[in-house]
Amino acid sequence: MTTSPDHSCSIAATLAVVGDRWSLLILRQAFRGDRRFSEFADELGIAKNLLSSRLRSLVESDVLEKVLYQEHPARYEYRLTPRGLELSGALIALMHWGDRWYADGGPPTVLTHDACGTALQHHVWCPDCDSAVGPTQIRSTPGPGVNLNV
Amino acid sequence: MTTSPDHSCSIAATLAVVGDRWSLLILRQAFRGDRRFSEFADELGIAKNLLSSRLRSLVESDVLEKVLYQEHPARYEYRLTPRGLELSGALIALMHWGDRWYADGGPPTVLTHDACGTALQHHVWCPDCDSAVGPTQIRSTPGPGVNLNV
Repeated sequence: MTTSPDHSCSIAATLAVVGDRWSLLILRQAFRGDRRFSEFADELGIAKNLLSSRLRSLVESDVLEKVLYQEHPARYEYRLTPRGLELSGALIALMHWGDRWYADGGPPTVLTHDACGTALQHHVWCPDCDSAVGPTQIRSTPGPGVNLNV
Repeated sequence: MTTSPDHSCSIAATLAVVGDRWSLLILRQAFRGDRRFSEFADELGIAKNLLSSRLRSLVESDVLEKVLYQEHPARYEYRLTPRGLELSGALIALMHWGDRWYADGGPPTVLTHDACGTALQHHVWCPDCDSAVGPTQIRSTPGPGVNLNV
């Protein structure tokens, strides 16, 4: 968690910030509404020093924001930043894969669209063909940032 | 990497299988076409004992398949299984987040649709409303598997 983002690969850059199981589980809890240290500790059963270190790292990376919510005594909570909120797609993709391969009795959690209650999907999309694209139909090409940090 | 999938949460279940940085980077290389031990070792600069252990774990989890490609002497390569191929959406979501927040000079890699060359998107989708859904429009509800392993 002390590595800097790798600018030569965006998967590695992401994993330098959230590439460990605890950080991703803390973010899962944040998406479920947890904000306080004690809530994260209780839900995850994680050692407090480990939780402190992961929260500090997520705040340093601007994924969570540490906010004073009470002055006497001083109490803080952790809220998802805009950057943190944008991780929802990745967490949903990881969750759907777990649903597909490990949820023998059906998904433990179903994510629905608040406006209509429909179960959400997650997919890779071609805006030109207006269709979902499978893993064997994807080509990887060098982008504008390819040689910046080689 | 020795934990069993957690059937009470599909994010945790997924992370029990691929929830460390090296496993996800090995999978990134597999999607880029690497198959042989030496290719993974060269591209990732990972210690060989660590690479062996991660590959073994990914084979045990049926994410990679170990295939004999030469008999004398015996040589093996690692190929993505159908289960492994289905992780592409999660890897793409992680990559797009890194592109968004850390690729100051533009994305190092652009994924395109092989049929038309258009840069791919990735999103959470409501099939009923036929629209993309943002992180604040998602509701989490208990699914059929919610109480199976509590």
